[in-house]
Amino acid sequence: MATITVLGAGMMGSALCVPLVDRGHEVRLVGTPLDTEIIDSLRAHGVHPRLKLELPRQIRAFQEPELEVALAGSEALILGVSSAGIRWAASRLAGLPSLELPLAMITKGLEWSGQELRVLPDVLRDLFPQSARSRLEPVGVAGPCIAGELARRVDTCVVFTGRDPSAVERFAELASGPYYFVQRSHDVLGVEVCAALKNAYAMGIGFAAGLHERAGGQPGSVAMHNYESAVFAQSVLEMQRLVQVIGGDPASAVGLAGVGDLDVTCNGGRTGRFGKLLGLGLAMPDAVAAMQGATLECLEVLDVLRNALPGLEARGVLAPSELPLLRQLIRVVHDEAPIAMPFAAFVRGSR
Amino acid sequence: MATITVLGAGMMGSALCVPLVDRGHEVRLVGTPLDTEIIDSLRAHGVHPRLKLELPRQIRAFQEPELEVALAGSEALILGVSSAGIRWAASRLAGLPSLELPLAMITKGLEWSGQELRVLPDVLRDLFPQSARSRLEPVGVAGPCIAGELARRVDTCVVFTGRDPSAVERFAELASGPYYFVQRSHDVLGVEVCAALKNAYAMGIGFAAGLHERAGGQPGSVAMHNYESAVFAQSVLEMQRLVQVIGGDPASAVGLAGVGDLDVTCNGGRTGRFGKLLGLGLAMPDAVAAMQGATLECLEVLDVLRNALPGLEARGVLAPSELPLLRQLIRVVHDEAPIAMPFAAFVRGSR
Repeated sequence: MATITVLGAGMMGSALCVPLVDRGHEVRLVGTPLDTEIIDSLRAHGVHPRLKLELPRQIRAFQEPELEVALAGSEALILGVSSAGIRWAASRLAGLPSLELPLAMITKGLEWSGQELRVLPDVLRDLFPQSARSRLEPVGVAGPCIAGELARRVDTCVVFTGRDPSAVERFAELASGPYYFVQRSHDVLGVEVCAALKNAYAMGIGFAAGLHERAGGQPGSVAMHNYESAVFAQSVLEMQRLVQVIGGDPASAVGLAGVGDLDVTCNGGRTGRFGKLLGLGLAMPDAVAAMQGATLECLEVLDVLRNALPGLEARGVLAPSELPLLRQLIRVVHDEAPIAMPFAAFVRGSR
Repeated sequence: MATITVLGAGMMGSALCVPLVDRGHEVRLVGTPLDTEIIDSLRAHGVHPRLKLELPRQIRAFQEPELEVALAGSEALILGVSSAGIRWAASRLAGLPSLELPLAMITKGLEWSGQELRVLPDVLRDLFPQSARSRLEPVGVAGPCIAGELARRVDTCVVFTGRDPSAVERFAELASGPYYFVQRSHDVLGVEVCAALKNAYAMGIGFAAGLHERAGGQPGSVAMHNYESAVFAQSVLEMQRLVQVIGGDPASAVGLAGVGDLDVTCNGGRTGRFGKLLGLGLAMPDAVAAMQGATLECLEVLDVLRNALPGLEARGVLAPSELPLLRQLIRVVHDEAPIAMPFAAFVRGSR
């Protein structure tokens, strides 16, 4: 048994507490300044308002100012903030002795430094004081996991990745349980790039459902599944290629972090619904408005890649003819280009 | 423009006629002895009763005894029969001069020779007279293609594979069009093994929907997508491994023939519905009965693999710990084992 603090009480951070308390750990869930109402609700009646679920009462909920109290005696720290919250979390933790704790993070995203594509565990490390960096190798959590399902104890397979195998093993042993299955990977770049990219590609896979409905089609076994699955297959090929370009292992795209997470994002995620709205013909601002403020990671990652691709081409590691699907998704989002899938480039390309 | 005969007027053979006539070819669709009513219907009012669709009137429909008439002047032959019809087709064609025509086939399946797993283009070749074999390198058609969608001109990406690149190129050029995109592959073993295996794995991916409904769950974004996508990812990894075992290119599992066709089979196919019935708790015979006589390729391919796996192990090319998902699917189908996904073996295994 261990004492574990989770910082960030959004859906995924809170859901991850469930397998941890089920393993018998003492779990302390600390909200960010944005989570005040969630923590209030958990304290009052145990219900997480966004998961719409009563969580196990053993989870101890703390408001943000109580972070130090929660961390006292903790043996591990898990960051459950969104990508927008990563800088806040780094500065909030910077002065604390807890910075020495083993650290895992569920946050996903990519940044373009102007020189290279960077994954969030590396970004986070660089946000910490120099003195802490050498000790800190954050463990990333990826794979097909809808928070609402994990919180309801649906069988879930994930992958933990990090450059320090003992840290990966430590978190994997803490979290593994009868419905939470943890694969280990050393390929931080491959796993994290796939985890970020899947949102962009899931948007494109969602186009088909919207195009079909727009053409007057009914849901059913005859729809535009051929279109959808061609885009799905191309997505995985392009994830492999981009992983390779930044020095990761393309095999990571074939497994839980790539294929698996892409599939779950299409089937259960808001990103697929957003793609469907674009397929239905909504203009970008209207589609964004229709999502009623939901975080659209697909737009964030496409924005990063729009800046990154020319840089990668300039370095000579990527040809302008490569990644035709990703480039079209960028055009749709940023230039309001019509949805015209470059299928001919799909079948010309790859092997 | 060319004259092309398609033998077999089932859904897929008939659907393939649509891009061919749209390209301006003369297309002659010849029914098997099982297709008499389909051909009658096409002749009477142009409607394909199983596709529930009026096909282009330019498609010329022939009954089986008229095969020789149809073949006169044909420049290419496409086999559209089911795997059960492959021996009939070989013997029907054996004495004809048309055996020299370039040949493509949409039939999918695997056979276990007692020594090795064989793909259908190779099985077909060996069914022809010795004199014809050296000339004959059938071209296989794979990738995510629901017949009813192709017949309605939904954008479709497929892969044509064969050991004779000029034959592959010839068929690709004949068939490619504005909504039918053809990738070329030399990896006959990889493409054909994936095309056959996808049915087995799609059955397993379908379990999740049934298990969720059986537990009283409603369809929606919170269901058992985590379970489903973990099985999906494992399916692709196992397809890669089995392709490698029989000497194909594992890369074929990541693309249209593997990931793409698996995805479309889950979303649009009867195999996924059959898997759902098993997930709902129906016993095997009841689930089969509920499918009302639909061909269940998943059962055929699992039957072949049940015989093949011990043979591959005896040859030392496969370890008993490998392919845990496939082995569990075989147990469910053949031993009426309960559906208990070996998730721990998934995350332990792979790379």
